[in-house]
Amino acid sequence: MMREIKNILVLTLLVGLVSSPAFAQPETPVSEWTGKTILLVGAHPDDDSNSYGTLSMLQENGNEVYVLLMTTGNVGTKDPDMTRDRLAKIRRGEELRALNEIGIPEENYINLGYNDGMLEFTDRKEVVRRLVKWYRKLKPDVLFAFDPGYGYQKWLKADHRRASYLAVDAARAAEWRLIFPGQITQDGLEKHWIQEYMFYSGVEEDKNTWVDISGKHADRKFNAVSKHVSQFSSAWEDYNGSNLEAEDLPTEDRNEFLDKMRSRVYDNKKDGTTVEGFRYYKGIPDGIGHRRH
Amino acid sequence: MMREIKNILVLTLLVGLVSSPAFAQPETPVSEWTGKTILLVGAHPDDDSNSYGTLSMLQENGNEVYVLLMTTGNVGTKDPDMTRDRLAKIRRGEELRALNEIGIPEENYINLGYNDGMLEFTDRKEVVRRLVKWYRKLKPDVLFAFDPGYGYQKWLKADHRRASYLAVDAARAAEWRLIFPGQITQDGLEKHWIQEYMFYSGVEEDKNTWVDISGKHADRKFNAVSKHVSQFSSAWEDYNGSNLEAEDLPTEDRNEFLDKMRSRVYDNKKDGTTVEGFRYYKGIPDGIGHRRH
Amino acid sequence: MMREIKNILVLTLLVGLVSSPAFAQPETPVSEWTGKTILLVGAHPDDDSNSYGTLSMLQENGNEVYVLLMTTGNVGTKDPDMTRDRLAKIRRGEELRALNEIGIPEENYINLGYNDGMLEFTDRKEVVRRLVKWYRKLKPDVLFAFDPGYGYQKWLKADHRRASYLAVDAARAAEWRLIFPGQITQDGLEKHWIQEYMFYSGVEEDKNTWVDISGKHADRKFNAVSKHVSQFSSAWEDYNGSNLEAEDLPTEDRNEFLDKMRSRVYDNKKDGTTVEGFRYYKGIPDGIGHRRH
Amino acid sequence: MMREIKNILVLTLLVGLVSSPAFAQPETPVSEWTGKTILLVGAHPDDDSNSYGTLSMLQENGNEVYVLLMTTGNVGTKDPDMTRDRLAKIRRGEELRALNEIGIPEENYINLGYNDGMLEFTDRKEVVRRLVKWYRKLKPDVLFAFDPGYGYQKWLKADHRRASYLAVDAARAAEWRLIFPGQITQDGLEKHWIQEYMFYSGVEEDKNTWVDISGKHADRKFNAVSKHVSQFSSAWEDYNGSNLEAEDLPTEDRNEFLDKMRSRVYDNKKDGTTVEGFRYYKGIPDGIGHRRH
Amino acid sequence: MMREIKNILVLTLLVGLVSSPAFAQPETPVSEWTGKTILLVGAHPDDDSNSYGTLSMLQENGNEVYVLLMTTGNVGTKDPDMTRDRLAKIRRGEELRALNEIGIPEENYINLGYNDGMLEFTDRKEVVRRLVKWYRKLKPDVLFAFDPGYGYQKWLKADHRRASYLAVDAARAAEWRLIFPGQITQDGLEKHWIQEYMFYSGVEEDKNTWVDISGKHADRKFNAVSKHVSQFSSAWEDYNGSNLEAEDLPTEDRNEFLDKMRSRVYDNKKDGTTVEGFRYYKGIPDGIGHRRH
Amino acid sequence: MMREIKNILVLTLLVGLVSSPAFAQPETPVSEWTGKTILLVGAHPDDDSNSYGTLSMLQENGNEVYVLLMTTGNVGTKDPDMTRDRLAKIRRGEELRALNEIGIPEENYINLGYNDGMLEFTDRKEVVRRLVKWYRKLKPDVLFAFDPGYGYQKWLKADHRRASYLAVDAARAAEWRLIFPGQITQDGLEKHWIQEYMFYSGVEEDKNTWVDISGKHADRKFNAVSKHVSQFSSAWEDYNGSNLEAEDLPTEDRNEFLDKMRSRVYDNKKDGTTVEGFRYYKGIPDGIGHRRH
Repeated sequence: MMREIKNILVLTLLVGLVSSPAFAQPETPVSEWTGKTILLVGAHPDDDSNSYGTLSMLQENGNEVYVLLMTTGNVGTKDPDMTRDRLAKIRRGEELRALNEIGIPEENYINLGYNDGMLEFTDRKEVVRRLVKWYRKLKPDVLFAFDPGYGYQKWLKADHRRASYLAVDAARAAEWRLIFPGQITQDGLEKHWIQEYMFYSGVEEDKNTWVDISGKHADRKFNAVSKHVSQFSSAWEDYNGSNLEAEDLPTEDRNEFLDKMRSRVYDNKKDGTTVEGFRYYKGIPDGIGHRRH
Repeated sequence: MMREIKNILVLTLLVGLVSSPAFAQPETPVSEWTGKTILLVGAHPDDDSNSYGTLSMLQENGNEVYVLLMTTGNVGTKDPDMTRDRLAKIRRGEELRALNEIGIPEENYINLGYNDGMLEFTDRKEVVRRLVKWYRKLKPDVLFAFDPGYGYQKWLKADHRRASYLAVDAARAAEWRLIFPGQITQDGLEKHWIQEYMFYSGVEEDKNTWVDISGKHADRKFNAVSKHVSQFSSAWEDYNGSNLEAEDLPTEDRNEFLDKMRSRVYDNKKDGTTVEGFRYYKGIPDGIGHRRH
Repeated sequence: MMREIKNILVLTLLVGLVSSPAFAQPETPVSEWTGKTILLVGAHPDDDSNSYGTLSMLQENGNEVYVLLMTTGNVGTKDPDMTRDRLAKIRRGEELRALNEIGIPEENYINLGYNDGMLEFTDRKEVVRRLVKWYRKLKPDVLFAFDPGYGYQKWLKADHRRASYLAVDAARAAEWRLIFPGQITQDGLEKHWIQEYMFYSGVEEDKNTWVDISGKHADRKFNAVSKHVSQFSSAWEDYNGSNLEAEDLPTEDRNEFLDKMRSRVYDNKKDGTTVEGFRYYKGIPDGIGHRRH
Repeated sequence: MMREIKNILVLTLLVGLVSSPAFAQPETPVSEWTGKTILLVGAHPDDDSNSYGTLSMLQENGNEVYVLLMTTGNVGTKDPDMTRDRLAKIRRGEELRALNEIGIPEENYINLGYNDGMLEFTDRKEVVRRLVKWYRKLKPDVLFAFDPGYGYQKWLKADHRRASYLAVDAARAAEWRLIFPGQITQDGLEKHWIQEYMFYSGVEEDKNTWVDISGKHADRKFNAVSKHVSQFSSAWEDYNGSNLEAEDLPTEDRNEFLDKMRSRVYDNKKDGTTVEGFRYYKGIPDGIGHRRH
Repeated sequence: MMREIKNILVLTLLVGLVSSPAFAQPETPVSEWTGKTILLVGAHPDDDSNSYGTLSMLQENGNEVYVLLMTTGNVGTKDPDMTRDRLAKIRRGEELRALNEIGIPEENYINLGYNDGMLEFTDRKEVVRRLVKWYRKLKPDVLFAFDPGYGYQKWLKADHRRASYLAVDAARAAEWRLIFPGQITQDGLEKHWIQEYMFYSGVEEDKNTWVDISGKHADRKFNAVSKHVSQFSSAWEDYNGSNLEAEDLPTEDRNEFLDKMRSRVYDNKKDGTTVEGFRYYKGIPDGIGHRRH
Repeated sequence: MMREIKNILVLTLLVGLVSSPAFAQPETPVSEWTGKTILLVGAHPDDDSNSYGTLSMLQENGNEVYVLLMTTGNVGTKDPDMTRDRLAKIRRGEELRALNEIGIPEENYINLGYNDGMLEFTDRKEVVRRLVKWYRKLKPDVLFAFDPGYGYQKWLKADHRRASYLAVDAARAAEWRLIFPGQITQDGLEKHWIQEYMFYSGVEEDKNTWVDISGKHADRKFNAVSKHVSQFSSAWEDYNGSNLEAEDLPTEDRNEFLDKMRSRVYDNKKDGTTVEGFRYYKGIPDGIGHRRH
């Protein structure tokens, strides 16, 4: 495998020579993946929601799926009576119930606990260090992350921009034994190379992989997305109670909410099929943004 | 209005589904805007100069226009005898006289007082905090700012790059009650959502809005731009005196200077008309860079 | 010359008016350059390797060529027995031997000594300060640097991204007398304007200049690249000995290594000729990323 | 006055020569001060409470008294149901009511709005900049601040330690025209030298000035301190309602609370008199910690 | 208990009134402590070594003892052939064998993995966050830490100075529910108040508690200290092999080494008894440095 | 020598055992030192002035004396017409002329070029790195620095406080081969242990060494100090001309100035002799602040 890394590295250096097969779709279709460890990294609870269909499929097909979010999402509300800690707990509950819908157990959910909106002001080295530790611990085969861009850097709002770079910079750091060596000498961890990437929220024209989630995975996605009541329903402005479910909303609000969620899941189509689109990349992290002719 | 926010937010999440009307030109043409509060944010005195025609029109049409610049511009000179503080004062004078030409009073000019060239090294969190405070205080309806990019991040030189992100990241932070809450609990301010954006200095192909400034506004713009003697005339290399006006320059220099300024204002044409071009965006700050098909 | 700067500055402000000749290829072909001071800035030993042919030509043609690298490259290995300091020394040796192949003497090599992989976490202001000091000391006419992008910001992996911005932001800072004035008042240096840029590793479609290195410069490049045994040969995984040369490798490994290096140098062709491609830019640093129609 | 500064500066440099009269008590007793501008700087609401008697006296005697606190005090509670923003508002109310008891109007209260407990992690340069701006705006004759130490640096808990250095470092910065010059060139402010200091919370043996507050000022202090119900009463653990006053507490709790406050005010005696103790210092900020024989 | 906290807090505010019993020796002698959770925090492996006798006694008496060190100690060597990672592993081994001698199991040893010598340059907020997490997880009753000073701040070399403040500032942060709330809302932890402190390496005259370790605990301490072969023996300059024990040293070196260790343990006497000296403090962290008459 | 280091290190760990001879005066009186390399580190031009007598003696006695100052001193003026860069040049001139009076050549003067008043806000790691590089380059035997304190940390104003810690923290870092290894692998430098320290500006009671400078060295000191016209004469408020010498001042001002300088030099007496007082320390930097009984 070492030799393979080296070869890819050398390949990467042959800039401008040949069109690289690395940017093609996955050799094995996503729907046939099995036995892999999958890690999705995002900034807030619900950043994973546009990937719920694919994660559901992966989890069912015998892969181990983890979700790591960096902030608690504790400022995302327009409810004048909502407080930070109450919201943090609500969103944790929503996230866990959503993950449960797609078969991911609570112990596979990691939240770094940062305050929402402050991620862009948090020491980058320390967050990268924490991510690297998780990468080395979980040893994912595939990383789902915000697309940092392809060729050019994508414009993302502040915390997604930050989350995007943190996730891929950490992927690069994780593979070098001599970076953050304390994790290796003290915690018994080893360097780890994440070989495959599924980038979400990228620029539309850069997507190269669409996963067919039609059927049960779309339905589970719908159920999962519908757990984020605090974010997408009328509770956004007025959250009464705790651990609200769709059924707790007034009838009209509930219907409006579920319609939107339905549209969000089922209207995302390619060639008439319900899909989730990604930019797939395979190789060393160095080449994540390489656009060659 | 809250409901509107929520809907737009949900819309924003429907990535990849439909082409968004948010990226069209303003529904109401800029020339018909009235009663709005307008804020332009830039890095240096004269960063606003390519928008002087539009600001002149807006001010005349019953809008309240503010200009906020982050640095004093105190290093922009090739005059070997110029000093930092003298230049800071000269440029403040030029800026105020320019604003006066387009009808903006001195009290609508805000300068954060940072040293030119050092903005990129100033603590981001604190500058965002200051900008958020001004946004919450002035409550602008429209923000003019350096275009951070559309789809991809635009390349801007260091201080413009920094100013661009600061301006839009602060726009996002300003709308959340739980971010920088001290401004709300201690200063009696409220969260504020800036809904419309006019981005300047963007990549040419991303512009979508051209304001016809031909006639008096172009003339005022010419008068205003011509106040920046320290930057665009021979005084750039040799600034003799204080508060120089064009007429203080030697005849040849004056003519050359005014010709350039004239060309700068009147040669900026679209379909034969003197214009200023922008990328207009309406919506929540999250979507500023979203490029969808 | 001062007047020239001013004129270019004014030109730069005429955004959107005319297509700029500044983005054309160099007026004098690179192969005819002579008497210039050339500085290449990169992050790691071997970041200069895709420019070896051009540097070889320039050095031979009576230009003075310097190479400044920011890190020691002390983590780039998959050899489980390699250590940081040993690798730093090995890579210094490789770099010096490579430069020797293309005629650049040891005293023209500068290494800032930062740890590999940590550049992105090092205080930007201080690194810019150091670069500005070198720019003011060496007074390069031409800067070779990672392409930070053209129009949009290029995606580069963490340390190349950082190195790219540092190099060009420092170029901008260096030309202002009132930025880092201590270098001028205490060290007898003067502000310096680097007027020409050769950007490497850019997005392919942005390249505008291809230097024909076929013949002796390609051969020297091959010899030079082949000095980086620790990076591109089997020594990457298992480095036995010190100051390894290609001939120290087992036959099979040596052949594989040299084949790859040969392909890397000679297969990089344009219209059948062995070349190195760059984005050439001439002007003030402010305009490095300006894309106009 | 300029000459006076210079002389004191020179005096300060004569280290080790003579015992300095600068460390004696104020020439004019505090009780006779009038016409002065007084500024107290602290970290949290109630940091000023041990100075309430003296501030009350100064305000009554025709001085202008300001209080500037850096954080909102929004984490100081053991009530499991308290939230950050609610507490921030409660403590603002308590602080204003306390100041009202000693005659200081609301407009003389400044709160920088930082989160409690995070001051030690906030960019020092920016906080110093903000303090310098207030010093230059209010032009205090006397600064009340946490004692940073005399000879040796005092040990203070994290936020008091930070507040102490920030206050005195800003006092030093404020007096130099060329530090934070943007405040001068853009905001019309001038450098300002604070000449007198009353340090509170110092090491006991370093105090040199005790203000006799017996009588009405002690009584007002008692009334003022008793406004901080959220901090010193049973509401600390269980805050029911809003804007609680002592009379809102259950009888037993109220009595216990008032007894403690009474003891706090009236038991602080020197030679049988109710006092407040300070380390008084007069001179340039450079000498604040100079201990000479 | 809440009430107790409040009372101590109020007590703390009564500055200058009464001599505080909090600064006396522990009510229950250290030798009689049982059932407590003990945490020692230091910067490097062996920073705990002057407390080995006391820790040995505490562990034997039914307390749970943990040791948390912030750096791997990977630069502490004069051996020209030693490398960072090899040293980190050696020192981990030495530390674990030393702890084993005094009965502390491997799972009670925590190392944060930072590079030695760089602690002073690591983001303070993030290290405090990590410490607070451990405090909230382990819930220590007693914290052993470098003495930050009593009245005045102690002078400690860079990394000990930093470790000292980090340890006590984190102790303060840990007790507030609203500081680092993500640990509470996401990780199920609770705020924790460490009530007792044993400060080591303080200024001699500030020590108030001497623990009699004569007999078996001194002997175990001698055995434990003698595990740090890389630091105190001739291996300091020339470390041959791996996991060296005293018996692996040449006879003369071994004897010299053991003599020194013996002297270090047994010559540390008070009134003829082998002791370890500390400054004991009980109360809220705010008062750690309060010196009152 | 290695063994010596180790022994001292072990000695240092024997805290509380014996009174250390390391804190005594130098074994060889300062007046007999010869062949040593001496480095004085300070924050501003003239920070060295209280040591001019001793430096003069050392330079004459065959030692090599260097002076390294961190800032240009470019804000130290009350002259309303003075500018930063003009002052920086003036103070460089004064410093060089002063050093010339005591026999130190221009090439032995190093100025790091930082802005005055901003040192406390400059990245510590990078300044330490620069200092370590100078220590490793010059290899001083003796370091003169602001006294950071003895037992407790001395209170120094912001930039002196910072300069003090930087100087001694760098002394510690310099002696470890694995700290800032890039200086060793790339620049051919070696770790260096500074063994002797002369601390100036300490708390009076901590001084332990007084150097008799009476006679020619006091006279040279007087001449040297009198070069700092911009700081100690009436030019402080009104600096007319350039490179002012005492004789350029109006008669009255000149006399007043020279009288002050005379008093400053000659009135600093111990037992009737003109002296300069220091805290001398010998040993490893770890022990600089150790106060033992």
